[in-house]
Amino acid sequence: MAVKDFVGRDIISIHDFTKKDIIDVLETAKRMETLSNMKLNRNMMNAKVMASLFFEPSTRTRLSFESSMNKLGGKVIGFSDGNISSTYKGESLKDTIKMVENYSDVIVIRHPIDGSARLAAEVSNVPVINAGDGSNQHPTQTLLDLYTIKKTFDQITDLKIGLIGDLKYGRTVHSLAYALALFKAKLVFISPEELKMPKYIINDIQKANPDVEIEEKNEVESVINDLDVLYATRIQRERFVDMTEYEKVKNAFRIEKKMLKNVKSNFKLMHPLPRINEISEDIDESKYALYFEQSANGIPIRQSLLALVTGRFG
Amino acid sequence: MAVKDFVGRDIISIHDFTKKDIIDVLETAKRMETLSNMKLNRNMMNAKVMASLFFEPSTRTRLSFESSMNKLGGKVIGFSDGNISSTYKGESLKDTIKMVENYSDVIVIRHPIDGSARLAAEVSNVPVINAGDGSNQHPTQTLLDLYTIKKTFDQITDLKIGLIGDLKYGRTVHSLAYALALFKAKLVFISPEELKMPKYIINDIQKANPDVEIEEKNEVESVINDLDVLYATRIQRERFVDMTEYEKVKNAFRIEKKMLKNVKSNFKLMHPLPRINEISEDIDESKYALYFEQSANGIPIRQSLLALVTGRFG
Amino acid sequence: MAVKDFVGRDIISIHDFTKKDIIDVLETAKRMETLSNMKLNRNMMNAKVMASLFFEPSTRTRLSFESSMNKLGGKVIGFSDGNISSTYKGESLKDTIKMVENYSDVIVIRHPIDGSARLAAEVSNVPVINAGDGSNQHPTQTLLDLYTIKKTFDQITDLKIGLIGDLKYGRTVHSLAYALALFKAKLVFISPEELKMPKYIINDIQKANPDVEIEEKNEVESVINDLDVLYATRIQRERFVDMTEYEKVKNAFRIEKKMLKNVKSNFKLMHPLPRINEISEDIDESKYALYFEQSANGIPIRQSLLALVTGRFG
Repeated sequence: MAVKDFVGRDIISIHDFTKKDIIDVLETAKRMETLSNMKLNRNMMNAKVMASLFFEPSTRTRLSFESSMNKLGGKVIGFSDGNISSTYKGESLKDTIKMVENYSDVIVIRHPIDGSARLAAEVSNVPVINAGDGSNQHPTQTLLDLYTIKKTFDQITDLKIGLIGDLKYGRTVHSLAYALALFKAKLVFISPEELKMPKYIINDIQKANPDVEIEEKNEVESVINDLDVLYATRIQRERFVDMTEYEKVKNAFRIEKKMLKNVKSNFKLMHPLPRINEISEDIDESKYALYFEQSANGIPIRQSLLALVTGRFG
Repeated sequence: MAVKDFVGRDIISIHDFTKKDIIDVLETAKRMETLSNMKLNRNMMNAKVMASLFFEPSTRTRLSFESSMNKLGGKVIGFSDGNISSTYKGESLKDTIKMVENYSDVIVIRHPIDGSARLAAEVSNVPVINAGDGSNQHPTQTLLDLYTIKKTFDQITDLKIGLIGDLKYGRTVHSLAYALALFKAKLVFISPEELKMPKYIINDIQKANPDVEIEEKNEVESVINDLDVLYATRIQRERFVDMTEYEKVKNAFRIEKKMLKNVKSNFKLMHPLPRINEISEDIDESKYALYFEQSANGIPIRQSLLALVTGRFG
Repeated sequence: MAVKDFVGRDIISIHDFTKKDIIDVLETAKRMETLSNMKLNRNMMNAKVMASLFFEPSTRTRLSFESSMNKLGGKVIGFSDGNISSTYKGESLKDTIKMVENYSDVIVIRHPIDGSARLAAEVSNVPVINAGDGSNQHPTQTLLDLYTIKKTFDQITDLKIGLIGDLKYGRTVHSLAYALALFKAKLVFISPEELKMPKYIINDIQKANPDVEIEEKNEVESVINDLDVLYATRIQRERFVDMTEYEKVKNAFRIEKKMLKNVKSNFKLMHPLPRINEISEDIDESKYALYFEQSANGIPIRQSLLALVTGRFG
């Protein structure tokens, strides 16, 4: 494993990763978990400072990155929201990055505008990790999703994986579908008509992986018993003009316990969280619920990336 | 002292503590202060992460917890306020806790809703410490109040302790009165008629401690010279319909320097802080003012609780 | 060098510093940079806690202080903005400081009201560093500006230094002009008529340094080719009644690349940042741009002050 190749690298989009790169990160995360269990990585990021620049709030992602850094002995500076002076708001992103690179060894950025993470990376002398830029990319989410599947099933290839919910606007599912296809998973896209996976994304996936199997469904019942994984995402009210339509769709795509009666015995339900009401809470304690463990996997993945890009792993 | 009994324990309400438990915590805090003076506890919380979840701001309590953890070599993640995305706001408290337990070794929670800390504790796999849930409980405040009295007078039993201000709605004084009665202090409740100690709380205290001495007063002058401690709390404007009434009450229950002319030589004035105008500032430099020292005692108490519940003490 | 003299000292105003004091701080910062390069200062602030009290946001200054402390192995607590409860807002600054001094070893304060840092220092038992109080003082900015000039030119004496922009209200340029005069730099004040350097400040400077050379200009073109340094500051829209006037002035005092055609070969352009549009971005990559390096110099200066006042240097 050539972890040296990651030193100084920016983590902006899953599209920048080869399949080999992804495998390297997943392997590193596995080793990181072993080190954590043996308490051998507690000083790995000693004397390193991570700048956590959240231009919009994302408590879950922020806490995951900050915990990752802290558990490796590193330090964190930054901001979590609009606690920013008005003059500062007028500053260009470039100037902000030119400041912060002097104060830190790695920059984690969350920004509402598509492409901002890439811009930050171009300007910065220290590695930049994208923690979500607008509707564009959120590569650490994709990597932790893959890691979760790999850890649970020991492989990704040939698994039948359903993606359900808002497949039109959902950043998470676009990146994930792309990455799953790399690993030759079989894909089922399940969504209301209004929120189907965009044709251009399906084309992209097929071009990159000519033999990928893709099905499309507008309900989940007919396919759920064949799935290994069902990955649910939120359907956002804002996407609908007609609120009656929204209520209908929202309820039709909610996962209820009774729907799991005949699923495969190893079937797993995933969700990037936060969930609003996409998954009934009575599923939480069942063996099918993988979403809390999935969230926990953010730690080894983000620890690996932080350590890799700053040269503290390998 | 059976400090092992505290490992993994949640700190939700003073009512969960036996008298023996309280004594154990106060003893631990004393030992913690000794360790601090000898600089022997600086790595006690090494490699531990505290999640500081303040769903409403409480700068004083938050800084006290975060300083406590930092001074023991631990790390802190969390949020201090509404710097929370709208989707996150829609997330259930349960889901938030199921996330944060993966990112931390102990959770400190402040929440505007009564009972939320108990709910968090039921869900969490890591210990939860209540830093105030609505009008309900704030056990670490009660413990630091007891610790302050014990440290100053070397005992609590038989001290005559006045509680003055808003005794109807004041969370702090309800818990404190209950705990002081456990230690057989003599209680004097001093308040305007509108803000008297609720009858059900007096009944609870008497049931748990049949021989407790309780007096009630609607002015402080007639009793102040008999007191060992006067514990003042804020009278909140929002409690009054009639603003003229509020102004009258507010001024009648303000502690002025001239009122202290004939108090006992060891008399002490306490206040949980922040104060608005309940205590005249010219008392601050007098030997009667104990409130700044009281605030400092938050450190050994909170350090003890953090170390006890995570198994780092004993 | 008598660095011992700084132990326990408050850093409130550049006017509290003798020329000798300033030289001591600049020398310490130089040694601090050497230690950083040799990785020998990573535990210098071990077990120390810095309280970072930003009563108004100033992301740049806050991150610089917090990075400085973290890189020395210290810990940080505090707040960055109005994430403060309403009761807390009613608390006096004195009470806040009496609390925070128990939780920390050094206090960094940013406050919108002139004189608040001095008040905090009078109340506090731990050293207080002013990170900007209203329109009054921002001494660490002045020290990092001097350090930047000293580091670049190896001396300050006899340099011809232009200060351009809002010289009437700009806190930064008042303190800097005063300090530069101490070191016998030649000063050129360049501003629109409405925003001239106040007469009383020029008088102060001349009284303290009778042989100081001061010129005043209302445009930069006639003097820029004689300057060693041009220090630009923002012209704030709020200062103008007439917006047409503001637009005219703003554009007339913007530094464009073409204006630098015939400057001295060692000429440097400085700016305290954030910049809005005072300096054209195409200058950033030129050898004249010193402002990003200037911002980086905040680290050794603030590290030096933190270590000096807490007795961890020397």
